[in-house]
Amino acid sequence: MKPDSTPQGVVAGSIPLFAGHPSSDLLPVEALQRVIGAAWQGRGVARFLNYGDEQGNPQLIEFLVERLNRRENLGIRRENLMIIGGSTGGVGMITQHLTAPGDAILVDAPSYRDALHIFRDHGLEICAAPIDDDGIIVAELERNLRELKASGKTPRFYYVVPSFQNPSGIIMAVERRREVIKLSREYRFAIVEDDVYSDLRFEGALPPSFYALADGENVLRLGTFSKTLAPGLRIGWLIASAERIAGFVESGLLRMGGGANPFSAAVVADYCRSGAWEAHIQWLRGQYRRRRDIALAALDSCMPKDVEWTRPTGGYFIWLRLPPSVRVDALDARAKEQGVYFASGKGFFVNPEDGAHHLRLSFSFLPVAELQAGIEILGDLIARMIA
Amino acid sequence: MKPDSTPQGVVAGSIPLFAGHPSSDLLPVEALQRVIGAAWQGRGVARFLNYGDEQGNPQLIEFLVERLNRRENLGIRRENLMIIGGSTGGVGMITQHLTAPGDAILVDAPSYRDALHIFRDHGLEICAAPIDDDGIIVAELERNLRELKASGKTPRFYYVVPSFQNPSGIIMAVERRREVIKLSREYRFAIVEDDVYSDLRFEGALPPSFYALADGENVLRLGTFSKTLAPGLRIGWLIASAERIAGFVESGLLRMGGGANPFSAAVVADYCRSGAWEAHIQWLRGQYRRRRDIALAALDSCMPKDVEWTRPTGGYFIWLRLPPSVRVDALDARAKEQGVYFASGKGFFVNPEDGAHHLRLSFSFLPVAELQAGIEILGDLIARMIA
Repeated sequence: MKPDSTPQGVVAGSIPLFAGHPSSDLLPVEALQRVIGAAWQGRGVARFLNYGDEQGNPQLIEFLVERLNRRENLGIRRENLMIIGGSTGGVGMITQHLTAPGDAILVDAPSYRDALHIFRDHGLEICAAPIDDDGIIVAELERNLRELKASGKTPRFYYVVPSFQNPSGIIMAVERRREVIKLSREYRFAIVEDDVYSDLRFEGALPPSFYALADGENVLRLGTFSKTLAPGLRIGWLIASAERIAGFVESGLLRMGGGANPFSAAVVADYCRSGAWEAHIQWLRGQYRRRRDIALAALDSCMPKDVEWTRPTGGYFIWLRLPPSVRVDALDARAKEQGVYFASGKGFFVNPEDGAHHLRLSFSFLPVAELQAGIEILGDLIARMIA
Repeated sequence: MKPDSTPQGVVAGSIPLFAGHPSSDLLPVEALQRVIGAAWQGRGVARFLNYGDEQGNPQLIEFLVERLNRRENLGIRRENLMIIGGSTGGVGMITQHLTAPGDAILVDAPSYRDALHIFRDHGLEICAAPIDDDGIIVAELERNLRELKASGKTPRFYYVVPSFQNPSGIIMAVERRREVIKLSREYRFAIVEDDVYSDLRFEGALPPSFYALADGENVLRLGTFSKTLAPGLRIGWLIASAERIAGFVESGLLRMGGGANPFSAAVVADYCRSGAWEAHIQWLRGQYRRRRDIALAALDSCMPKDVEWTRPTGGYFIWLRLPPSVRVDALDARAKEQGVYFASGKGFFVNPEDGAHHLRLSFSFLPVAELQAGIEILGDLIARMIA
């Protein structure tokens, strides 16, 4: 992700509608400041400043296990959870441990661009199946599985952001989740559930997670503090079977460096134990809901009728489909001239051409006036390109 | 690395002579506290709490480039340096990018145990050549290179801790460094220089680094704040060619998660810019020198005459050779009964049996009374095992 001050290649004063990070004015600065200020008084500093336990900050593990069990009745124990360097750290670790170059994995089309980038860095064969408004189309996933099997391949895992997907903002329906779990047992692949947005639900209910539906069997579920606290702390968590967690904890990287970011993990642990997090999440939901509403209202009022978009009930993103006559590259070039930057749909597909008429807007980062202005400029450009 | 409070599997009240981390009473708590306290006042919090630049905190990059050029006349620019999650983060990233399973790499025998663990996790063929008091024996390294070549293999890199090696504490002589660079050009392998202890020099001078001697050509040099500031901050740096740095910066992991640990990197940047670091390093040298002196004096007075050990002029470690009649496993078992834990030599060799009469002691972590007591117990046990 790009820094929020002057993202690389973006002129100051421009409108970065691509920026998938939280608005800096939504970060709980004062609360973190209080926690850090208090933490130095009379506590052991080793917990903050020396090498940490490979599994991660024990207080934070305890807090998260209790929270997950209380809210979702997951029945996990501390052996099922480890602290990681954001969801990113988990995706990197899992990919490193579960795959070798040339292995196949399964993803949605579209899927999270930066995760695809990681998978390409590992030399993986990425098999994508299209999604609709309820998530991956299971028949298409199954077709990929049969084709892989015919060529003697077993995919290592299915990577998915099941709730408020990046880039589409959709929620995978519970029945789809169940069918994917069935396939994962039949074809013996793991499910990597990148569950980073589910706390940012604006309305309605979410289906149970893959981890809950599968009773934890062969599911690795990632969570993060990046969306509901602060990404710069680089703290997330992974829940999985005790055997898998033990395997990761025994890895050379954790042996050498100790657990994930002891300093910021201790800050996060103290923040969570202060009770501030739940109230902050509650407040954030209102803040992001308002931004989502403003973005959708701007789209409704500015976009030509041939443009379609998702109406997410949580998360950070809206996914647009341009009319056949408007290519995203052409729109991108013209938008940049006006200082408007969005995430081209092409980056979210294994085959970039599949995203040639799509783009992702983020409503998490920009002040609402800029969000509206950016969408208005896009609407105007598209209207002129159609005409 | 294990946490310093109650390292896993170690009974409280015992003497962990294995612990390769800084003594918690040598961490500059007050100075860090001041820096963090000041940082919240009137500055942009995004620098601390939001996603960061993929290359890392810009102020810290600037500080390190200036320091390295001033002290070593390296002539590097900001394009040659990136911030990483401790030296560990660099070893992981380099291994991920430069190797595929089955590739060969070159190491010392003995070599740093946790780095070997990372290389094994990546499925690499690890070719070790023995060291003497001046570092790797070049003829043995060359023999490995010829054998690899004969089997059609090009090793991807040579991994080395050239100054105050882990576990031996030795310094590789400048002539050896030059010969290795010559071989690296002939056989076309990179040099990964894990330069984590060189600021902890107690006396004498160090040879120029591999990076300096090779004019940066095909050398990746790692540095860290773990040994001279605080490991829990998880901040280090990598210097390499601009092309290599650009390649790492463009990776999926950094795209997804942003630069290494923005929060603690900002703390480290402010600490460094306050001018406190150089004075702290100077002070640490005296502190660790004293611990080294006490450990060597204890060894001189307690060890039976058939035991040999290195006399490091910096770093954290002393490397012991036991007499042929004493196996490290047997000593380990008896020492544990007395509450003394050391790092068995076996972990530092690709072929564990090569370390069956070696052990590593760390003088960095324990209070001096425990350091002395632990060495006395070991001396007593070894004497009884010889008798």
